Amino acid sequence: MALDALFSPRAVAVVGASNRELTIGYRIIENLLEFGYLGPIYPVNPKGGEIRGLTAFPSILDTPDPVDVAHIVIKNTLVPACVEDCAKKGVKAVIVNTAGFSEIGDKGVALEDQLLAVAKKTGIRVFGPNCQGIINTDPAVRAYCNFTFTRPMPGHISIVAQSGGVGEVIHQRITELGVGVRQYASNGNACDVSIPEIIRHFGEDEQTKVIVVHIESLPDPRAFLEAAKHVARRNPILGMKVGRTAEGAKAVSSHTGGMIKQDTAVELVFDKAGIVAFRNIEELCQSAIGFASQPVPAGNRVGMIANTGGPAIIATDELIEAGMVMPPLSKKAETLLREKLYPEASINNPIDVLATAGPEHFAAAMSALIDDDGIDAIFLNFVTPFFVDTLGVAREIADANRRSQKPIVATVMTEKKGWAKTLEVIRDSGVPTYDMPETGAKVLASMGRYAALLKRPSEAPVSFTDANASRARSLLKEAAEAGLHVLPAALAYDLLTCYGIPVARHLSVPNAKECLTAVEQIGYPVALKVDAETVVHKTESGGVVLDIRDPDSLREHAERFSDRFADSPGLRFLVQEQLHGGHEVIVGAKAVEGLGYVVMFGLGGIFVEVLKDVSFRITPVTECEAREMIESLRVYKLLTGVRGQAGVDLAALIEIIQRVSQMLLDNPEIRELDINPLFAFEQGTKAADVRVII
Amino acid sequence: MALDALFSPRAVAVVGASNRELTIGYRIIENLLEFGYLGPIYPVNPKGGEIRGLTAFPSILDTPDPVDVAHIVIKNTLVPACVEDCAKKGVKAVIVNTAGFSEIGDKGVALEDQLLAVAKKTGIRVFGPNCQGIINTDPAVRAYCNFTFTRPMPGHISIVAQSGGVGEVIHQRITELGVGVRQYASNGNACDVSIPEIIRHFGEDEQTKVIVVHIESLPDPRAFLEAAKHVARRNPILGMKVGRTAEGAKAVSSHTGGMIKQDTAVELVFDKAGIVAFRNIEELCQSAIGFASQPVPAGNRVGMIANTGGPAIIATDELIEAGMVMPPLSKKAETLLREKLYPEASINNPIDVLATAGPEHFAAAMSALIDDDGIDAIFLNFVTPFFVDTLGVAREIADANRRSQKPIVATVMTEKKGWAKTLEVIRDSGVPTYDMPETGAKVLASMGRYAALLKRPSEAPVSFTDANASRARSLLKEAAEAGLHVLPAALAYDLLTCYGIPVARHLSVPNAKECLTAVEQIGYPVALKVDAETVVHKTESGGVVLDIRDPDSLREHAERFSDRFADSPGLRFLVQEQLHGGHEVIVGAKAVEGLGYVVMFGLGGIFVEVLKDVSFRITPVTECEAREMIESLRVYKLLTGVRGQAGVDLAALIEIIQRVSQMLLDNPEIRELDINPLFAFEQGTKAADVRVII
Repeated sequence: MALDALFSPRAVAVVGASNRELTIGYRIIENLLEFGYLGPIYPVNPKGGEIRGLTAFPSILDTPDPVDVAHIVIKNTLVPACVEDCAKKGVKAVIVNTAGFSEIGDKGVALEDQLLAVAKKTGIRVFGPNCQGIINTDPAVRAYCNFTFTRPMPGHISIVAQSGGVGEVIHQRITELGVGVRQYASNGNACDVSIPEIIRHFGEDEQTKVIVVHIESLPDPRAFLEAAKHVARRNPILGMKVGRTAEGAKAVSSHTGGMIKQDTAVELVFDKAGIVAFRNIEELCQSAIGFASQPVPAGNRVGMIANTGGPAIIATDELIEAGMVMPPLSKKAETLLREKLYPEASINNPIDVLATAGPEHFAAAMSALIDDDGIDAIFLNFVTPFFVDTLGVAREIADANRRSQKPIVATVMTEKKGWAKTLEVIRDSGVPTYDMPETGAKVLASMGRYAALLKRPSEAPVSFTDANASRARSLLKEAAEAGLHVLPAALAYDLLTCYGIPVARHLSVPNAKECLTAVEQIGYPVALKVDAETVVHKTESGGVVLDIRDPDSLREHAERFSDRFADSPGLRFLVQEQLHGGHEVIVGAKAVEGLGYVVMFGLGGIFVEVLKDVSFRITPVTECEAREMIESLRVYKLLTGVRGQAGVDLAALIEIIQRVSQMLLDNPEIRELDINPLFAFEQGTKAADVRVII
Repeated sequence: MALDALFSPRAVAVVGASNRELTIGYRIIENLLEFGYLGPIYPVNPKGGEIRGLTAFPSILDTPDPVDVAHIVIKNTLVPACVEDCAKKGVKAVIVNTAGFSEIGDKGVALEDQLLAVAKKTGIRVFGPNCQGIINTDPAVRAYCNFTFTRPMPGHISIVAQSGGVGEVIHQRITELGVGVRQYASNGNACDVSIPEIIRHFGEDEQTKVIVVHIESLPDPRAFLEAAKHVARRNPILGMKVGRTAEGAKAVSSHTGGMIKQDTAVELVFDKAGIVAFRNIEELCQSAIGFASQPVPAGNRVGMIANTGGPAIIATDELIEAGMVMPPLSKKAETLLREKLYPEASINNPIDVLATAGPEHFAAAMSALIDDDGIDAIFLNFVTPFFVDTLGVAREIADANRRSQKPIVATVMTEKKGWAKTLEVIRDSGVPTYDMPETGAKVLASMGRYAALLKRPSEAPVSFTDANASRARSLLKEAAEAGLHVLPAALAYDLLTCYGIPVARHLSVPNAKECLTAVEQIGYPVALKVDAETVVHKTESGGVVLDIRDPDSLREHAERFSDRFADSPGLRFLVQEQLHGGHEVIVGAKAVEGLGYVVMFGLGGIFVEVLKDVSFRITPVTECEAREMIESLRVYKLLTGVRGQAGVDLAALIEIIQRVSQMLLDNPEIRELDINPLFAFEQGTKAADVRVII
């Protein structure tokens, strides 16, 4: 376990320890002492002396063996040399709290490179720089290698945050809610020890039941995806991604590129990895508490118990909107409830046991849901009436929780001082309790989302053996050698053909005259398109004429193109079979540094341009993902057929998306791809236009 | 002020007072005593004796004068007679806590009717039955006429809730957050004193600065709309409507009816009244605190200050997604900040003063925003570093708040015990402080939403003087007298014509043969439509043929109709000008009991059927609202023109919607209307199909 020395150090040194209270060099020592760190603490300060009663050493080299972790809080320019000394000493990992590295620009970048070079050379691990540090609440360790103020209890939630500020907010909030934390890490500039590594480390920790991840950017998205995917099948990972409204990346030349929003890739990585994504820290913290104390539900079917109607309606709204369902109760459950509850009670889902219900009524309702095979999770809305034995109810809830294999989440609406004991009994039993019906409902729904992620097939992408990858490679190699950035039309269609993607019949000719020869092979009606690297937007430039039905018209348009685009180097003319009927769809793709490609699917025309109704997945796109891409469109019904129109060949579309995925992964020269439109017919598909940027 | 006696009673009697602690009759007396009610409390119990040290009277008639409010907690069947006695006594209002009225079905409904009859006869006001009661924290009153447990501090938030459970959750949460409440009311079955009345009462209370409303249904939507509209221009009203995922109303015969969701009307009432709508109690409570302590912003332009980046990004996401903007700072602000902040500080919006920033830096940043005319509201993200004089920062925030005419909302991320004093100084200054950046951002955004509601023009609906209302009335009268429920096509088109709504040329004829005569007046191409009350879905029944271009074809189709619809009583044939080009839109409407009509607008075909892209407003629809209906569609751009297509005549569409609104209000016989399609051209519009249900 690679990061064990960092999270469970046998001894900690603080290089730059100080006696001045408002310094980080003092604060870390204070935190280690007050948190009860079990190993020795070695302050390092050239002046020697004592710091908080501990003897200070003039240099890291003077400290006794062994030192696993050294904090470095000295001036930025002195850090690389200090890390060298630490390596000499045999320190396993340094936590560089000092700022003034890559975050301040060129000079800092150079300094950070130097730091990393020392790490690579000596094998010492660098955590940071410009970071908070780590915390490990393991009672056998109790390492508070951090200058923040939250004092966590031991627990099962582990947190890794790119932003120290956000990490601290999350950590603080969970602690304030009375719930324990297992390990915490905020690694700042993350020059060496990375978030993917930390996720894997948490994944190997037996006491970590849920992992909370906050990121602002993904320096190595593939490594993140793989680490998270590996861990998330065993430990739920709750992810918070921010910056979703930031100014988008600069407009790119092709359409598809422009449709992929700046943060889309991160959302897609979360989804592909099986991370439960959040857009709100409070919800994330509350959900972490649910995951830490309850089993994952088998599915999304909730049974609700309430003793007052209003909050139950609110919780129902929230659950249903978040994708949960509230099925009718089983006959067996109904029979039991009719026998045990008040006659006026509502024996539905939600079950309204009535405000006057006591322990025996709650117990019956919980038993009914625990034994109902149609229910995966139990949601309890409990308002504490003064005339009810609420403590008795609490004890029944605790008892039900002991018996239940299904998650139980409770909303307890009460005055917390007067009903402290009631609350305590429920909380101590391990049933997460929330103040607000929406909060509890959101938590349970997030557990349902994780259950759904777990159920997705972990299928391998299909490899189409009819693909002619070697021909594709040589086509692209030739194009690259010729210095092309946009493939000429004929080449682009050939590339699709190599991967078994059907294309409209076409011929590319060098002049207007030959268009008339070409059409003889293709047959009217035809489309005529300008084909030149410099003409990026063919349609907008007047370089596309559709549905030409006779030679006169073809000649006239071809000659007009000759004039209009005379200045375009390498000008050619594409004469192409005119397609009709079916639906026009788009399959696009864009390379994302370090990740592979993001593939886009949508219906053409206004559906993309006005409604932005498109879906994305990361390569390799599996069959299941290709199907999801199509089914998740708002206008999906158009493809299955509405208003008497026939649907399209969905199986063919699913296959085309996978073939495109394979083509992209085989040919990393491709930067962007845009098949627009692809005609989807009742039987099969045909690409009518394609643009490939290499 | 009609409800003054209820909310500020000179004396309170409790009929059904009891010595048993776990009864409502005991609890109310205890609450009145413990909350320090300033008037006399008269327990009423046939056995007499003492209750909590107070002498009990055998009957309400035996209590000393005057009694303004009497709680009634006796058996349901005894309540009406008791209310009669209360009226005799001169009691102004009774609070009927007793349950067992309309909520239990027919018997209860009869009992509630009896109760209301007593109220009407005697003039006594009935609050409830099956309710909690009221609370008034006014130091001159301190009436806790309620059996719940929350002990509010005096403040400026007044709450009215239909559900006692939800009301208590809201009340409890605001109190737990350390913020005061002014008045509270939960009126249960609301047989007499209504939520609209209570809203008007709160609106007249000088100390109420913000009103919180929770409803589950609107028994008299028009009264609610008018009360709320009146009050909301002076006092912000925050509204929570629940039940939004409930099973929709049963499918109705016409299309438009089906599109109006069960809760749409409530949302529309909120919107028309200028109520700030919430879908989450926690957000509502937090926002109430913001409204209670800060001025309303002049607009939606936020200036943000942060001392750490991560939470600022989160707050920015949330603000922008909620419709706020974060403009660049003024030159003047930039100059000031460059002079006063650290050189590494980020002088943008958000302003990052850096983690090391002290009081003087925060002071400068706040001054810059207070004096920047391009900023309407200030958002502060303050993480409390241990090395900063955070108390000094808090004092500067308090000072800025005293000087500022703009709202200031703060997110303070801290450890609440260690930084208690810092928090206290900020809170006591009246700056609402939140734990989480999203929470603060949501609060400020809700204040921006209210600002936007206030800015809407309070224009009167246009009255089109060219409308021939008397002819319309006689048309409808004839139809009603003939026992029709669906207007025959010709009549429906005539009705539109009465209101200046252009229609396609058409003739209605009684048989296939006359279709060929009719077409001579209309001219090819034509549409042929079956016209019979029993044929509800013409297209689906094969009763519509479009674009008929010659007599043979017309004859053939007309004869086919004759066969196919031979069994339809009153069968007629509509021969109609075939329209081409433009866009097909829908204008629909449905009567809503007690409210008027909900008018719908959308683009036809898949945009309605697949995308559900429609907008709604309540009659009378003003010009501004008609414009909003059109502009709020996701596919609005299609109407203004995209991809080289011309836009449509928006002014004409806006006028048609208003003309429809006038037609509906003039003719309350109309239950449903569906103009589908209405062709919208570059110039003008023409209705091509219309269905009117009376």
